Amino acid sequence: MTDSTHTPKALKSLETLLHQDIPLTRSMGLQVMEATADSLRLRAPLQNNINHKSTAFGGSLYATAVLTGWGLIHLALTKHDLHGHIVIQESHTRFLKPVKADIETYCRFESEPQLATFLKMYRRKGRARIQLTTEIYNEAQELATVFEGQYVVHR
Amino acid sequence: MTDSTHTPKALKSLETLLHQDIPLTRSMGLQVMEATADSLRLRAPLQNNINHKSTAFGGSLYATAVLTGWGLIHLALTKHDLHGHIVIQESHTRFLKPVKADIETYCRFESEPQLATFLKMYRRKGRARIQLTTEIYNEAQELATVFEGQYVVHR
Repeated sequence: MTDSTHTPKALKSLETLLHQDIPLTRSMGLQVMEATADSLRLRAPLQNNINHKSTAFGGSLYATAVLTGWGLIHLALTKHDLHGHIVIQESHTRFLKPVKADIETYCRFESEPQLATFLKMYRRKGRARIQLTTEIYNEAQELATVFEGQYVVHR
Repeated sequence: MTDSTHTPKALKSLETLLHQDIPLTRSMGLQVMEATADSLRLRAPLQNNINHKSTAFGGSLYATAVLTGWGLIHLALTKHDLHGHIVIQESHTRFLKPVKADIETYCRFESEPQLATFLKMYRRKGRARIQLTTEIYNEAQELATVFEGQYVVHR
């Protein structure tokens, strides 16, 4: 996309917001890594999210993934001077490979028209739905987790 | 089912196991509430799992749900002197209503034949798959979250 990326301040502000609003994200050690106009990367250290097999706990993979989509929508709304409640409605998650390193997620809008349609609908109706996919690659650069979430934003 | 329930010791031991194996469950305040031969209830206090809307965080709902299925399989294996790695492979989750109270999950085997087939397959092949549904009802006794997970157990 042609838009500029978000400022470091916007990223730090998203991280602070998540830590304040959802205390469990502090225990998860959740960090906002990078955002462009159409994508967001979060990280959660393995240490905070480990299970007995020394891999990332499925619940932590899920939580990090669902928040990546949430954060991406939040940044897009903020950028367009919009506000709203962002709610996860439904999700489908596939755990393809274990993750033996820090959890690193990546979520992006499917296309510019997807984002534009979503914002247009929200402005018009005060309610809009969007489907986002968050991917997690493991230490061997294999696609490890695929999270598909349907979010609803309402006033 | 006709089998007796699990002992309080088995429940405490499952709780200890979860807290040891997955440190994040301590931050979640996860508790094992009740188990019969074919069902398991877990609880996670709202306080530990709250979001900015004073409802339960979707990631916490998911984590509690996925562990309820995991724990149910673990108890069944233990009861039959079996051991194995229990892995979540795929899940579909619907968030129907917000949860404004402690998260209380309920998971049970679909039927006695489902459990029997699963155990038979695992004994024979050293690998078996099972589909489990975990439900979460909210403070108004409405069905709030439905988690359907496909688990794989392997030696």
